[in-house]
Amino acid sequence: MRHNNRQPDQLRDVCFTMGYARHAEGSCLVQFGDTHVLCTASFESKVPPFLKGKGTGWVTAEYGMLPRSTHDRMDREAAKGKQSGRTQEIQRLIGRSLRAIIDTSLMGETQIKLDCDVLQADGGTRTAAITGSYLALHQAVNWAMTNGKLAKNPLREAVAAISCGVVNGTAYLDLDYNEDSTADADANFVMTQSGLLVEVQATAEGSTFDRSKFDALMKLADEGIQQLIAKQQDALLQMKAAA
Amino acid sequence: MRHNNRQPDQLRDVCFTMGYARHAEGSCLVQFGDTHVLCTASFESKVPPFLKGKGTGWVTAEYGMLPRSTHDRMDREAAKGKQSGRTQEIQRLIGRSLRAIIDTSLMGETQIKLDCDVLQADGGTRTAAITGSYLALHQAVNWAMTNGKLAKNPLREAVAAISCGVVNGTAYLDLDYNEDSTADADANFVMTQSGLLVEVQATAEGSTFDRSKFDALMKLADEGIQQLIAKQQDALLQMKAAA
Amino acid sequence: MRHNNRQPDQLRDVCFTMGYARHAEGSCLVQFGDTHVLCTASFESKVPPFLKGKGTGWVTAEYGMLPRSTHDRMDREAAKGKQSGRTQEIQRLIGRSLRAIIDTSLMGETQIKLDCDVLQADGGTRTAAITGSYLALHQAVNWAMTNGKLAKNPLREAVAAISCGVVNGTAYLDLDYNEDSTADADANFVMTQSGLLVEVQATAEGSTFDRSKFDALMKLADEGIQQLIAKQQDALLQMKAAA
Amino acid sequence: MRHNNRQPDQLRDVCFTMGYARHAEGSCLVQFGDTHVLCTASFESKVPPFLKGKGTGWVTAEYGMLPRSTHDRMDREAAKGKQSGRTQEIQRLIGRSLRAIIDTSLMGETQIKLDCDVLQADGGTRTAAITGSYLALHQAVNWAMTNGKLAKNPLREAVAAISCGVVNGTAYLDLDYNEDSTADADANFVMTQSGLLVEVQATAEGSTFDRSKFDALMKLADEGIQQLIAKQQDALLQMKAAA
Amino acid sequence: MRHNNRQPDQLRDVCFTMGYARHAEGSCLVQFGDTHVLCTASFESKVPPFLKGKGTGWVTAEYGMLPRSTHDRMDREAAKGKQSGRTQEIQRLIGRSLRAIIDTSLMGETQIKLDCDVLQADGGTRTAAITGSYLALHQAVNWAMTNGKLAKNPLREAVAAISCGVVNGTAYLDLDYNEDSTADADANFVMTQSGLLVEVQATAEGSTFDRSKFDALMKLADEGIQQLIAKQQDALLQMKAAA
Amino acid sequence: MRHNNRQPDQLRDVCFTMGYARHAEGSCLVQFGDTHVLCTASFESKVPPFLKGKGTGWVTAEYGMLPRSTHDRMDREAAKGKQSGRTQEIQRLIGRSLRAIIDTSLMGETQIKLDCDVLQADGGTRTAAITGSYLALHQAVNWAMTNGKLAKNPLREAVAAISCGVVNGTAYLDLDYNEDSTADADANFVMTQSGLLVEVQATAEGSTFDRSKFDALMKLADEGIQQLIAKQQDALLQMKAAA
Repeated sequence: MRHNNRQPDQLRDVCFTMGYARHAEGSCLVQFGDTHVLCTASFESKVPPFLKGKGTGWVTAEYGMLPRSTHDRMDREAAKGKQSGRTQEIQRLIGRSLRAIIDTSLMGETQIKLDCDVLQADGGTRTAAITGSYLALHQAVNWAMTNGKLAKNPLREAVAAISCGVVNGTAYLDLDYNEDSTADADANFVMTQSGLLVEVQATAEGSTFDRSKFDALMKLADEGIQQLIAKQQDALLQMKAAA
Repeated sequence: MRHNNRQPDQLRDVCFTMGYARHAEGSCLVQFGDTHVLCTASFESKVPPFLKGKGTGWVTAEYGMLPRSTHDRMDREAAKGKQSGRTQEIQRLIGRSLRAIIDTSLMGETQIKLDCDVLQADGGTRTAAITGSYLALHQAVNWAMTNGKLAKNPLREAVAAISCGVVNGTAYLDLDYNEDSTADADANFVMTQSGLLVEVQATAEGSTFDRSKFDALMKLADEGIQQLIAKQQDALLQMKAAA
Repeated sequence: MRHNNRQPDQLRDVCFTMGYARHAEGSCLVQFGDTHVLCTASFESKVPPFLKGKGTGWVTAEYGMLPRSTHDRMDREAAKGKQSGRTQEIQRLIGRSLRAIIDTSLMGETQIKLDCDVLQADGGTRTAAITGSYLALHQAVNWAMTNGKLAKNPLREAVAAISCGVVNGTAYLDLDYNEDSTADADANFVMTQSGLLVEVQATAEGSTFDRSKFDALMKLADEGIQQLIAKQQDALLQMKAAA
Repeated sequence: MRHNNRQPDQLRDVCFTMGYARHAEGSCLVQFGDTHVLCTASFESKVPPFLKGKGTGWVTAEYGMLPRSTHDRMDREAAKGKQSGRTQEIQRLIGRSLRAIIDTSLMGETQIKLDCDVLQADGGTRTAAITGSYLALHQAVNWAMTNGKLAKNPLREAVAAISCGVVNGTAYLDLDYNEDSTADADANFVMTQSGLLVEVQATAEGSTFDRSKFDALMKLADEGIQQLIAKQQDALLQMKAAA
Repeated sequence: MRHNNRQPDQLRDVCFTMGYARHAEGSCLVQFGDTHVLCTASFESKVPPFLKGKGTGWVTAEYGMLPRSTHDRMDREAAKGKQSGRTQEIQRLIGRSLRAIIDTSLMGETQIKLDCDVLQADGGTRTAAITGSYLALHQAVNWAMTNGKLAKNPLREAVAAISCGVVNGTAYLDLDYNEDSTADADANFVMTQSGLLVEVQATAEGSTFDRSKFDALMKLADEGIQQLIAKQQDALLQMKAAA
Repeated sequence: MRHNNRQPDQLRDVCFTMGYARHAEGSCLVQFGDTHVLCTASFESKVPPFLKGKGTGWVTAEYGMLPRSTHDRMDREAAKGKQSGRTQEIQRLIGRSLRAIIDTSLMGETQIKLDCDVLQADGGTRTAAITGSYLALHQAVNWAMTNGKLAKNPLREAVAAISCGVVNGTAYLDLDYNEDSTADADANFVMTQSGLLVEVQATAEGSTFDRSKFDALMKLADEGIQQLIAKQQDALLQMKAAA
């Protein structure tokens, strides 16, 4: 039994609060149990320099943690004057994951920037950020179409992400911090609504794992992500109903 | 009449959510209307180098804004690699304000760090941050006494802060962003429960103001801060009752 | 009696050396006793990016201290790779103070940059810098009008600044370093020739002060600043006479 | 047929030059076709601060590219003043990969730093770097045992890495730059001599891939890595024979 | 006798490998004994901002050392976030030396950037870098003329550089690291094929030297540089023959 | 004839103001015509980390220019966040020059830091800085001996420096900015009271020079430096007389 009384294949309670940030074109506060990430999507009518004049758009992401989102206070990256390697790795992952399900050639020369800020951390912040960012992006795309900034909907399908890992020899879905810090191996999967893979990252810090363990993790992730995508669709329906 | 239908001497709706951040020794989400600031207090059993061996404690603060807390997205300071002059000015002000009401000589060699992160901005973020930080600090001090980290309560009294300004010739309390950006002069006051002054900052960007206007601002602030301090006391009583 | 034999309301010896820096369009070495600040004004026929195309001008300031301007050597900010929060706070104050008395809409798209470099420090460097910068700015404006760079004089009136503080319960004008470091509260006032306020900053590091003390400080400052402005006018007359 | 006349499951010519760097405790110039990476291992009798006093060792890595290792010149990271997100991601991967096959508890408080510098790039620099770093690490471990710096051999087994990807719908092993830049999906696998997984990273920039494609890539990688490990063993035997 | 069995006026074995870097327009791996520097020349059809619109070209250089090119590992400058004063001094010297023998007015608005990266260091890296850079520059100029990027050959003549120094009272040519670190004085000379001086730098760390010693060093350098220039010509002839 | 009416071998008016900076252990404002440099010497009872425990002392230097010391305003290095290559080159040169004439083994574990800040620039700032720094250093050494911080005088002899260059084919001593910017070649020489060489730096930006020109420059420098050293001795005598 897991220390948190969850089944091996059980997600934490997941909650999406759409439109959490008043100023952003799209936003979602995503909660996977005690992991809380505020995702905002900012629409801009210009592209980064490397795309200027190419007639195509861009989606990118930035990630940060509030200093006391963690059990022990972390130094503030703005005060240290640089983002850690971990931060950069995560924000690159979020950006790639979202670019996988949007057709940037339909965006014209516009850009959507996702900001994912961790208000509280308990494991799985990067996968919560991807899952919430899809909703913020969706809302920003709707805003842009309603306001005549985008002619067509460039979104192809939904995307979500989940972590899983091997803890004491058993494969668990959606690790919390306690599980994550004692896992022999952990993995992050990003998949689409239609079940396609976007990113697979499995790592064994100071250790190794065999093929059967990897397959067990992928199976857990596949099922978990389909549940997350169903919850995303619910959140979008409710927002539409409320409008 | 003000554009937001408030009286000249009327505060926005003020709300304190104590214990918002699960991991911090003290925390408070403070809301002054649409200005939302998360204040956390982190207790540490060590002091900065310049105090090592002096037997006294320290209180300090850091401040940040989420990139899309503002109407238009701001660049992320961690990505730019430095904190702006404005950020540094504000965090220095918050730290000084709290050190005014705590007897650091009663803290032993311990430190409390306040992190004030603006989730949403609509004017008055620095004064909301000071007002909420007092509550986070109070909770952290209680935690430290309960856990044997502090022998005596070093807090002398409560502190709160408010902005006010001259808009179209009239003195208004608690400016929102719209008022702040059109003010001829604006001021921030930090005062204690017993009515003493901690900080006075009045400035007229590209303009000037006379002594009578300044006196009107100070009068508004004095009344507003006493209301804020009453609300702080309520929040502390409710938290105690809930414990 | 003050340790320096001054009356509570007595300024230090004040001296302005106009045109100290050969290359600058305006310059003044200002001395408040042992505090010596070199202020230069550099005229540029372009504005910062945020004003491009708006037809209006700008005045801004930078501040620095030579490493051994102080009693103990300070680290060189250029070598450390960043300006301290204190430095940024001061240079923002100087810029705002001068923009209060110049009509930037009369400047066309031109900019005047004030550089205030402390050659020797004995308290009150920021107020000396503001007071001297007005003279450097005045000289640069004259240069620009003489050389056809400005069509009209954009200066509205003179501005000067002084510090004061409460030392052992008594309000003193124009604190030197010794007084400043033992003050219970200290304040900086920036006022114009016509007696209007530009900036008020009063602070009580680790302490508080009451309203009557604040009023006493403001009264001292008001009188001190009028004396400084008279000395500024003398310096300008002498420079004109010498031309 | 591949543009380089290789079979889908065919590695490029692989060459290891052991002891390439005269001063390092271990070194290897690794060549995967036109990708050339110099790997050096530096032995140090101290550990990073977070391990001080814990009686255990550490292995870490840094990665860089010479400015003109690439087709178009890249800016020098030392001149820009920071390492890119990509650089940090790669050096973190190299470090984790090597820590997977070394028992740091047998190292005492010593550290081995791998420096992987790309002299010429034609795709697959990170996997070449891991594969070559194992050899540099092996040589440095031998040096340390011979010189009494390590009592026991902490290496558990060999490790190697390879990239593969889907190009025009076909899975290819060991992509060169031309293939990599047109791949629909690409993956990096790190495995040990005994066939265990250390890291799996599969990504589809702006696209997606299905499970069967992923399985095909893993199969290619498994076979390719066993060939690389055989070549590593040859290189070690030849070095031993030459000694 | 020198510890390396060389005569006082004897160069180390010098070897130039032309075209070492596949992607660069010009490249040379230069070896002065155990000092190995990879020099690449990158041709660009644009000039730095300060030359835009002036119709003239530019040649500049950057220098770096691999972390384990030295006996003890040096920190990586990209990781530290800045180039040392020594690095900047050397790259400025290399750039000036090459600009002395090229007529930038014949280059149109094009630029050639030399990158000099030390793979292995044993003294004299800056002089090896200058000597090798000339060959990389020569090859890049030929490439540019062949490819219609330059209409005329802007090179005036060859340039080379050598170090020399006073060790235990005797003047030696081409110091290795062992000699350099015990020298009383050392000097670097840059001269052209026609015997003209480009740069003279002589320094006595913590010591002094007299005029006769300086003259002895210059004489050694003059002879050494003429030998280097002869070897450069050989390398160019062989490359031409091989084409 | 030179544009400034000086003879080819004629120095500018040279003036040393000893004790210019009130707080420093040694200080000198040095003026070579319109080039004004403030040199301060700060005595510290500790050494940099690389010398800790070695029983020997250190002398080092930092250099800076006020933003408007130059004809056109330069960006402030503290604001840009880094010192230029030129700045670092110059401060390394000043430090080496002074270490040449002080026996650091007689200093115990103490350090003297020279700060050379250019108040006004008209060519030759680095040589003025070295010449003035010797006087500041001398004064600081006296202070340290008087105050029991140094047991023995570690100074061996005086040192001074001068620039010279070839302008329109003629060798001139002590170039001003106008001459320096049109020189075909320019050189800086650092020599001691006894006529020994400390540093020789000759450079021909975009050009070359022959041996006879170099000899002419060295001859001019030799004579000029002996005049400077005589003036240094005068300044020291006057200071002693005044004490």
